Amino acid sequence: MDKGKSEDRAAKIKQLAAMKRRQAKLAAEIAALEAEMAPPISPFAPDMFPDLPSVDGLLLASAAAGVRYKGRSDVMLAELAAGSVMAGTFTRSATRAAPVLWCEERLAALAAKPNRRKLGIVVNSGNANAFTGRHGADAVEAVMKAAGKALGTPKGNVFMASTGVIGEPLPSEKVTRKLEALAKKLSPKGQKGAAKAIMTTDTFPKGASTVTDLDGVPVTISGFAKGSGMIAPDMATMLVFLFTDAKIDQGVLQDTLAGLTDETFNSITVDSDTSTSDTLLVGATGKAKMAPIADRRDPRLRAFRAALGDVMRDLAIQVVKDGEGASKIVAITVTGAKSSRAARKIGLTIANSPLVKTAIAGEDPNWGRIVMAVGKSGEAADRDKLSIRFGKIQVAEEGWVSPSYSEELGAAYMKRAELDIGVDVGVGAGRATVWTCDLTHRYIEINADYRS
Amino acid sequence: MDKGKSEDRAAKIKQLAAMKRRQAKLAAEIAALEAEMAPPISPFAPDMFPDLPSVDGLLLASAAAGVRYKGRSDVMLAELAAGSVMAGTFTRSATRAAPVLWCEERLAALAAKPNRRKLGIVVNSGNANAFTGRHGADAVEAVMKAAGKALGTPKGNVFMASTGVIGEPLPSEKVTRKLEALAKKLSPKGQKGAAKAIMTTDTFPKGASTVTDLDGVPVTISGFAKGSGMIAPDMATMLVFLFTDAKIDQGVLQDTLAGLTDETFNSITVDSDTSTSDTLLVGATGKAKMAPIADRRDPRLRAFRAALGDVMRDLAIQVVKDGEGASKIVAITVTGAKSSRAARKIGLTIANSPLVKTAIAGEDPNWGRIVMAVGKSGEAADRDKLSIRFGKIQVAEEGWVSPSYSEELGAAYMKRAELDIGVDVGVGAGRATVWTCDLTHRYIEINADYRS
Repeated sequence: MDKGKSEDRAAKIKQLAAMKRRQAKLAAEIAALEAEMAPPISPFAPDMFPDLPSVDGLLLASAAAGVRYKGRSDVMLAELAAGSVMAGTFTRSATRAAPVLWCEERLAALAAKPNRRKLGIVVNSGNANAFTGRHGADAVEAVMKAAGKALGTPKGNVFMASTGVIGEPLPSEKVTRKLEALAKKLSPKGQKGAAKAIMTTDTFPKGASTVTDLDGVPVTISGFAKGSGMIAPDMATMLVFLFTDAKIDQGVLQDTLAGLTDETFNSITVDSDTSTSDTLLVGATGKAKMAPIADRRDPRLRAFRAALGDVMRDLAIQVVKDGEGASKIVAITVTGAKSSRAARKIGLTIANSPLVKTAIAGEDPNWGRIVMAVGKSGEAADRDKLSIRFGKIQVAEEGWVSPSYSEELGAAYMKRAELDIGVDVGVGAGRATVWTCDLTHRYIEINADYRS
Repeated sequence: MDKGKSEDRAAKIKQLAAMKRRQAKLAAEIAALEAEMAPPISPFAPDMFPDLPSVDGLLLASAAAGVRYKGRSDVMLAELAAGSVMAGTFTRSATRAAPVLWCEERLAALAAKPNRRKLGIVVNSGNANAFTGRHGADAVEAVMKAAGKALGTPKGNVFMASTGVIGEPLPSEKVTRKLEALAKKLSPKGQKGAAKAIMTTDTFPKGASTVTDLDGVPVTISGFAKGSGMIAPDMATMLVFLFTDAKIDQGVLQDTLAGLTDETFNSITVDSDTSTSDTLLVGATGKAKMAPIADRRDPRLRAFRAALGDVMRDLAIQVVKDGEGASKIVAITVTGAKSSRAARKIGLTIANSPLVKTAIAGEDPNWGRIVMAVGKSGEAADRDKLSIRFGKIQVAEEGWVSPSYSEELGAAYMKRAELDIGVDVGVGAGRATVWTCDLTHRYIEINADYRS
């Protein structure tokens, strides 16, 4: 390197350092101004929370208990009429939180014999009550005892869910001292408030509902969910609470729920990470004027299942739409797999690939990374029959780029906010759709700073 | 909102937009200046490429063939003396590239009978020759034919590896027209040049070597690797070429290699993504003055295995150190698992968790995310015996935060560039160490822009 070149380079290094200092200062100023204004909201947030119908036999209330957050509600109480039944499904994590263990135990006990008393649900945000040794179970016990007293039902009839920081003891007295007041303000219109009280990094509350006709009897299904990060296929709900006035046996409700989980909440992923607290509860009050659905072969079950599935899918997709840092929403449909299970696994492998997710963030029609992800899924695929489409654009077919495809077509498609990717792996008739979002700088910002 | 507040907010929105425009302009100027200077280099890059010893019977050459990159070498040719043996291990991807299929087939054919002729290896960077339909196999055939001619050996004695863009046909004539010239400049000193020619997004060439004593006979093991993104546990090599002058039977060499892969290249992950082209070849020239190792019970095999393992581990960790966007290097040791296989799976689940990796990038001692990752691994763990350490700092024990731990201790530890995390899951004696890097903004930048 001659002297002139070396001096030139030294000057550039100095210039670059100065520019980076300016950049850091500007970024700090922008962050301060943004924080002063409002927290960023997902571009996919709906204009408003849906107007959820009341469910006969369901009352809800929420309040600010100051568990961790200041100036916002963080605890909710639900009361279900005497004789209600509850079904549920939970994270399979080996390190699941104390409230999950409690719910699993109570669900099994209540399923074993008919319930004639009221049911309750207490949820707090801000603290997950997870990985806190025996303190975890003690805190659940304290809250359940106080909630049972406030609702006038055995503590064993009350369920609990907690979401937030892992590894810090839950200050249970902050929750218990609010329960009497919450019980006094229970209302059939409490769903919106409850949906807000259970949020953590969520940027919008999530609600969905439907009314379905079961042999001339209108039956309501309504509920709400929270979830934004730590969302992955192994019961990817975070927290979901669904309510219906249907009259249905606990066993039938539990079976119906289990069958629907795979194609809804287990088919979404934000970041492949699985919470220690994922909880989905469905309570049925039995207040609808119908004969009970007591049998798996009851013809009304088909319509009920479809309606419940619609509400679950709606909420699941809302969770992806609030994925941490999401700037794009992607539905990935895999066809031609050995089975629907194999199709879902291939879909989730694509949806979880950091290289696929960053390509989507960069609006890069990089279909080679989709080929890579199909290959690593561990499921059967015929490389020489593989086809890929972006929306209606055929990208690859018979194991190579499609003759009709051009990079310009793909690049234009990738500019959309909601993408639809199709992959056929050419070995069978298995089919599944999964939903995910992209991996952006904002995800890194949220998770390198937020202490969850 | 009163009028004053509303006007104030409008002014702030305007101010914010102006600041963001300034930020975007500055970022573009910085990127342009950086591009003009030099590509960013991993902070973990060694000061210089190691001085690799020659391996008797091995000759190498490299050149710029212009496959995709301009102004740098992108093709290498290796010649191994007549009578050499080759062992190898490859990606298990269902969409593996044409050169991988070729190598698998040739390895099986050559293993079936003694080889008395020269062996060759051709590697190109810039194009992976993957997912290009029948063009893929045609391109391999053309290159192998030309390489066999240039080396004076059957085309079936030549191996090939390609790395780079997926889905674009390999311009094989650009490679073939260089082979005669490469054959003429083959040299025992060609390893550094070859290590550079096979790079793609790598920021430094990777080499390692050792000389071991087998019953008084010095035996050399030397080689080089490339890999930076798309690095995951399923043969996480990208490309690795190892050479030794040991006299060893092909079957024994293949067995030794297979046993070492799990604890070296299959124990690293950058981003959980698996390449369609991962290839590891070990060639043994047999030039060392020793009786052949022809039996798995040969006592010399122990020292040979240890030496080969050291070189493989060294190269594997170099790949992590060049992980795309890496600012921290992490060794995760899992103990107390049901088996070493289970320990490795738990370790890789922690190492692949985006939430763990972003916490590390943010220097956040967020051990709750490690608990979460242990839980989702699917392997047995006792929540109430789980313990975690950062270096020598006990963070958690018996299922809860350690009484001696403080956030300040953890935060200070996380500022290091090289981290050592220990996790005991309390159910058995299985143990494994895996290596990974953090997930940074730079990873997003590289992968939202670079077309791989």
